[in-house]
Amino acid sequence: MSKFTAQQVAGLLGGKVEGDANAVITKLSKIEEGVSGSLSFLSNLQYAPFLYTTAASVVIIPNDYVLEKPVSATLIRVPEPRASFAVLLEAYNQIKNNKKGIEQPSFIPASAQLGEDVYIGAFVSIGENAVIGKNVKIFANSVIGDNIVIGDDTIIYAGVRIYSDCMIGKHCTIHSGVIIGGDGFGFNPNSENNYKKVPQIGNVIIEDHVEIGSNTTIDRATLGSTIIRKGVKLDNLIQIAHNVEIGENTVIAAQTGISGSTKIGKNCMIGGQVGIVGHLHIGDGVKIAAQSGIGQNLKDNEMVQGSPAFAVGDYRRSYVMFRSLPTKIKELENTIKNQNN
Amino acid sequence: MSKFTAQQVAGLLGGKVEGDANAVITKLSKIEEGVSGSLSFLSNLQYAPFLYTTAASVVIIPNDYVLEKPVSATLIRVPEPRASFAVLLEAYNQIKNNKKGIEQPSFIPASAQLGEDVYIGAFVSIGENAVIGKNVKIFANSVIGDNIVIGDDTIIYAGVRIYSDCMIGKHCTIHSGVIIGGDGFGFNPNSENNYKKVPQIGNVIIEDHVEIGSNTTIDRATLGSTIIRKGVKLDNLIQIAHNVEIGENTVIAAQTGISGSTKIGKNCMIGGQVGIVGHLHIGDGVKIAAQSGIGQNLKDNEMVQGSPAFAVGDYRRSYVMFRSLPTKIKELENTIKNQNN
Amino acid sequence: MSKFTAQQVAGLLGGKVEGDANAVITKLSKIEEGVSGSLSFLSNLQYAPFLYTTAASVVIIPNDYVLEKPVSATLIRVPEPRASFAVLLEAYNQIKNNKKGIEQPSFIPASAQLGEDVYIGAFVSIGENAVIGKNVKIFANSVIGDNIVIGDDTIIYAGVRIYSDCMIGKHCTIHSGVIIGGDGFGFNPNSENNYKKVPQIGNVIIEDHVEIGSNTTIDRATLGSTIIRKGVKLDNLIQIAHNVEIGENTVIAAQTGISGSTKIGKNCMIGGQVGIVGHLHIGDGVKIAAQSGIGQNLKDNEMVQGSPAFAVGDYRRSYVMFRSLPTKIKELENTIKNQNN
Repeated sequence: MSKFTAQQVAGLLGGKVEGDANAVITKLSKIEEGVSGSLSFLSNLQYAPFLYTTAASVVIIPNDYVLEKPVSATLIRVPEPRASFAVLLEAYNQIKNNKKGIEQPSFIPASAQLGEDVYIGAFVSIGENAVIGKNVKIFANSVIGDNIVIGDDTIIYAGVRIYSDCMIGKHCTIHSGVIIGGDGFGFNPNSENNYKKVPQIGNVIIEDHVEIGSNTTIDRATLGSTIIRKGVKLDNLIQIAHNVEIGENTVIAAQTGISGSTKIGKNCMIGGQVGIVGHLHIGDGVKIAAQSGIGQNLKDNEMVQGSPAFAVGDYRRSYVMFRSLPTKIKELENTIKNQNN
Repeated sequence: MSKFTAQQVAGLLGGKVEGDANAVITKLSKIEEGVSGSLSFLSNLQYAPFLYTTAASVVIIPNDYVLEKPVSATLIRVPEPRASFAVLLEAYNQIKNNKKGIEQPSFIPASAQLGEDVYIGAFVSIGENAVIGKNVKIFANSVIGDNIVIGDDTIIYAGVRIYSDCMIGKHCTIHSGVIIGGDGFGFNPNSENNYKKVPQIGNVIIEDHVEIGSNTTIDRATLGSTIIRKGVKLDNLIQIAHNVEIGENTVIAAQTGISGSTKIGKNCMIGGQVGIVGHLHIGDGVKIAAQSGIGQNLKDNEMVQGSPAFAVGDYRRSYVMFRSLPTKIKELENTIKNQNN
Repeated sequence: MSKFTAQQVAGLLGGKVEGDANAVITKLSKIEEGVSGSLSFLSNLQYAPFLYTTAASVVIIPNDYVLEKPVSATLIRVPEPRASFAVLLEAYNQIKNNKKGIEQPSFIPASAQLGEDVYIGAFVSIGENAVIGKNVKIFANSVIGDNIVIGDDTIIYAGVRIYSDCMIGKHCTIHSGVIIGGDGFGFNPNSENNYKKVPQIGNVIIEDHVEIGSNTTIDRATLGSTIIRKGVKLDNLIQIAHNVEIGENTVIAAQTGISGSTKIGKNCMIGGQVGIVGHLHIGDGVKIAAQSGIGQNLKDNEMVQGSPAFAVGDYRRSYVMFRSLPTKIKELENTIKNQNN
């Protein structure tokens, strides 16, 4: 990050400076971790005591906050400090990723089409007939297969692998080590007790505004498409099997696995390390607790926990009993025994 | 895929055309997802209604199927539509992966031996003294370490990393992001309450006809070899620790982890997200339900579930009780109380 | 490994040869897996019977071990065979990884600083202003982002990706496919029921003597740093979320996931496939059984199991009851029924 003065930041945010307008900031920090040269913000008033002790050079505070005592930091008053800080974060992020051009060596066949203002990192390999949209950034060592289409403004970080024939939407963010389009896990047993592979000739379709975390794997469909709908957010190390479909704006935490052909609805929230078996239908707005195992269809807005999972309230009541089971059973046995005496 | 007419496909399959023999197909689809230009098949007669509504241009149907009403698609009659369709899938797959030659730049030392008709993608790095068999395909950005042997007809997709001294069999398929031969996780505590690494100088041996899914990791042995036997199929994001041995034709679903020195038998089926502790012996033909935790040896053909796992039928009966535990205990308490009144 | 004679090895170890001092060894093996040309050791006397049957050419044995019958292998007597064998393993490991120099092509901007005796593999991409310490080895196809600092003597295996602004300590070992510094998983819901990304502008700090297993992912902090303290050992396929801190010498087994902002103490031992929710404080010396789910803070030295986890002894007692639950409940019901008769 370059250097900015409190006055420059206030100008950007439309805020009002109190204190040294020439205070210089070079980084952003939480108020409780403020150091000289950093800019912080105060929004949740639980953190207000830090305002008087922070070493941050500049703090963004609410217009209507009344100081309880003097403050050494320069203050910038705005209507909503959290929103203003988010504006600065966004600006910082854009500066950081603002790469353009084509590094050498890279491998780009004549049949590939590159949009305006793309960035192609060193040792990137692009396939035949690939179509890369405007402002797309593909960082070092990524491999984009044949016939792939990538929409405008998508960021592909270093070391992503996308197999042939897949389609990636606009404004997506795909993190390092993500594998898109590997073969689905399909084998037919044969008479000699071994397995013959079912050819996997479908593809993967990622719609717009999808984010995919590091080392997540999304298999291609056997036939047709594995589909990740608009706005889906996938954390790291998730497994999405062949022919799965994930509905709009569903969010899935790390290390969850979804087996073949399962369809998941819109606006679901799925915890970490969840397993979902194949060929299920999960409704819209479903919430699944971490480490649950889903073995049957779920209706809209169900909230479940356990392996196998059932209604979250029931699970918790059963688990409370499970914890006290040795005591509980002993009590019952004693009560019965005492009745006999 | 190139273009084919119904007549050409029927010729390939030894089938009989009904309808427009010049109908053109460019892709394969399920019958319920048929679009103009696609070829589908009807095998399971539950799907027969789709035959009369599909937009597919050509449908493969059984010789003995009797039409209930007129059909717009061109039909190809064969004895076994599913098998015929599989032939087409296989052909499609082979065309898709039919790459040969050595892309530039790639890194191939003079001491490495390359078999006939290999494909080496861009930015592939091959180690000293590596021996690569006939028809092997190594896609972009993969790294093959020193002294590695890879058997004929094996496919290594983009971005695989194989550490030095490992051996890969014939007809294997290794998907993107797979790591073979990383150090086993071995550390000895020492007096200062920290850890000294145990050098890991063994290797990994992958036998023939093994398939390994995306981002799966297989650690090298401390001494000796971690061994994946013939015909084993591993899904994505699986962890295989040092000195593990997996028997022939065992199939393991995604995100399962197997700890150090455990030996697994032949023809086992292990579900997703299973954990198996170290130094165990798992027999042949064992079936382990998803998300189970295995803490003790299993005999041939055992079927287990739970964490820790026990016989699957017993687990399910216990789990049914667990679900109704609050009700059940309440009932017992009430019965006892009523006896007292 | 090169060739050595028993005499040379004995010289290195300060041991005494019995038998053919010219016996040649080219590899190391366990005594029960010994082959001609291999060197083994006998430490645990349970393995003593193998001494008389092994095909190993040379075996290291304790000074005070009394032979029960003649042995065909050459023997080397030392005070502590296990320690001597470890010296040989270490020597082997160092020879194996003893690469130096800069392979071509690699991508190293003028602003990057490289220490003495570094090794940079083919297709490695290094970012602007990166500072690489002495004796650092970065194997093929790894990507080191802008402004990264890597301490002396650290090994980065093939295909590691480190995002910009992260710091790696001295004497670390980072295995293939590790992703350091991907964005934390932070999204704010907005009025249209979709999500706006929270920019992730912090970094990751890895201290000295840390080992990180294949395909593990460590996300950067939203603000501030995700911190892996000195001596931490992480196995494969682990997920460490944004702003997590892991204390000194804590060891974590494969496929465990730790959610955002959780702080873990020193000298903990965390099993495989454990899930820990966000914003928790886990004390020093805590032990967590495999597959546990941690949903609340843990004090120093607690030992827990289960999902959600509680004290390991209590968990096991409850689980014993769970296993026999159908029988137990039946017994209670029968006892009550019989009282009524």
